Amino acid sequence: MEADEPVHLPGLSRVAVCGGTHGNELSGVYLVREMLKLKRKATEMTQEKDEEGMSVLMVLSNPRAIQQCRRYIDADLNRCFTHATLNDSTSDAAPYEMIRSQELNSMLGPKGTKEAVDLICDLHNTTANMGLCFIGYSDSDWICLHIFQHLKRQMPDIPMRFIHFDVSSKESYSLDSVGKHGFAMEIGPQPHGVVRSNTYTAMKVGVQHVLDWVRFFNSGTVFEGGFVDVFTMVKNIDYPRDSSTHNITAAIHPHLQDRDFCLLHPQDPLFQTFSGETLRYKGSEPLYPFFINECAYYEKGIALSLARKKRVMIPAIRVQTNDDKQASEQGFVSEEEE
Amino acid sequence: MEADEPVHLPGLSRVAVCGGTHGNELSGVYLVREMLKLKRKATEMTQEKDEEGMSVLMVLSNPRAIQQCRRYIDADLNRCFTHATLNDSTSDAAPYEMIRSQELNSMLGPKGTKEAVDLICDLHNTTANMGLCFIGYSDSDWICLHIFQHLKRQMPDIPMRFIHFDVSSKESYSLDSVGKHGFAMEIGPQPHGVVRSNTYTAMKVGVQHVLDWVRFFNSGTVFEGGFVDVFTMVKNIDYPRDSSTHNITAAIHPHLQDRDFCLLHPQDPLFQTFSGETLRYKGSEPLYPFFINECAYYEKGIALSLARKKRVMIPAIRVQTNDDKQASEQGFVSEEEE
Repeated sequence: MEADEPVHLPGLSRVAVCGGTHGNELSGVYLVREMLKLKRKATEMTQEKDEEGMSVLMVLSNPRAIQQCRRYIDADLNRCFTHATLNDSTSDAAPYEMIRSQELNSMLGPKGTKEAVDLICDLHNTTANMGLCFIGYSDSDWICLHIFQHLKRQMPDIPMRFIHFDVSSKESYSLDSVGKHGFAMEIGPQPHGVVRSNTYTAMKVGVQHVLDWVRFFNSGTVFEGGFVDVFTMVKNIDYPRDSSTHNITAAIHPHLQDRDFCLLHPQDPLFQTFSGETLRYKGSEPLYPFFINECAYYEKGIALSLARKKRVMIPAIRVQTNDDKQASEQGFVSEEEE
Repeated sequence: MEADEPVHLPGLSRVAVCGGTHGNELSGVYLVREMLKLKRKATEMTQEKDEEGMSVLMVLSNPRAIQQCRRYIDADLNRCFTHATLNDSTSDAAPYEMIRSQELNSMLGPKGTKEAVDLICDLHNTTANMGLCFIGYSDSDWICLHIFQHLKRQMPDIPMRFIHFDVSSKESYSLDSVGKHGFAMEIGPQPHGVVRSNTYTAMKVGVQHVLDWVRFFNSGTVFEGGFVDVFTMVKNIDYPRDSSTHNITAAIHPHLQDRDFCLLHPQDPLFQTFSGETLRYKGSEPLYPFFINECAYYEKGIALSLARKKRVMIPAIRVQTNDDKQASEQGFVSEEEE
């Protein structure tokens, strides 16, 4: 294959857009409801049908948590999609989210199989000042990285980053890992349990561009290669805590609050204790902080996460044609060849 | 009494500072914990003792809700302090907050009696962009209005307003109504379940100034009269809702979001529906919006509240002396004479 020849990748005929995986992250809840309403109006048919040979499935992932406007009922649903949990046997006494994760795996997966949907876009909010982020498990999934590049071009006013959690497919735990491709679309800051118009609109426009990109791709558009900045998660930092009560004893320092993705240097202020003392970053390497002061992570022991930034080259891509498929079947072209 | 002669009011010997009346409003939770810790260190004695004949009682109002980082367990504690609820008979099956409100009434009240503490400052957070607000049930409680004026002077960088809910003492429902004087100190914006350093610090400094003012007052300082802007609540506006599901169908309009206390005129944008339509304010009177997009009020059917602003004259005040008390007992001077 020549250097400039686009990589040919299989078409994406089944796409899922999921909201309410966390029931109190409201942009996705209201966006999926709105999309379902429009779809019902437009087609008066089932959810699965769509134009141009592409089906878009809209899913409210955790209906019980949505109904109670809570993150989850018994356990964090978005940690239930490991191979181990999906293959565990459940009874009626199992945590609700464990049962629900297996239902979603049946609907959108099974994870790791040919039957899985081609792409999952799972909608989230954060209280951190993160703008719009894609979060995925791979820094070489050309589909996700090209969609990200497309949104960056189409929405130049929204700060946008690609976060990479370097976790194996087997260990990957979130709903988007059930699809052949998938990412979480995370937008903040927005308090959980609140819907802000600007955040809702950014998500709505973002999802429209995702679906547009898939239609362009399926219809044969060639997407040029280029470079993408990828933030790979390195480690989490917990709050300082009282050794006996385990209560936190400090908040994020005011100099760090809201400064997600601004490089944190050794000795920069990290926390301010409730008595007023400044605690500093003791690491030796400058890293990029994100998920700074995310509400739901207090209980997980995460005050912020830190990432290393790298530049990834992505090749030009286009959809596989019938000729490719025949060639591939005869062993001439490998799908993932670079 | 001459025009310039200060009104003489009884000293304030017992003050309560309460946090965690809503268990997920974290500034007050961490501030009261910190004050309790300092007090234990300083005195190694009980909570009630304080310098200069003034006792400061620090209270975590809803320990179970704090422990679960939720607003409440069974019912909103801060609606449980009406005469009716406080005098209702309870069993072990009663809602937790109903039992707890009666405990707090025993500790800080009983409401409406001579035994009640002199002043309650109850600490709250809101997701609305309200700065620091005092919320009280009277526009003629000179103690609360003077404390408010003092904080305004001492903290000129913090936007500060006095909100008046025109509700009778019998119907008043919040914890601060248990004291002889009382107000909620409400600071936002801050997501519930999150503690932000800047908000925590503003509350800490605010509470210090409240306690300083009480010490000054008790020691005989004369506080000059003046004018205070008071925002009296007129009405609430709910979100547009789907008639069958009762789900909201619109969010606060982006032009209104975060513009608490900016005058809302007839025909100004109020909501943006999830399909993108603008809905306008249909009232005929310009009013001041507040509690715009407060998280906890979705379930109460309140998208925002509206207030009328008026200017209230407050007289100069000073503490009653022993001579006053004797004169008062002999019928020469009325406490509340203006």
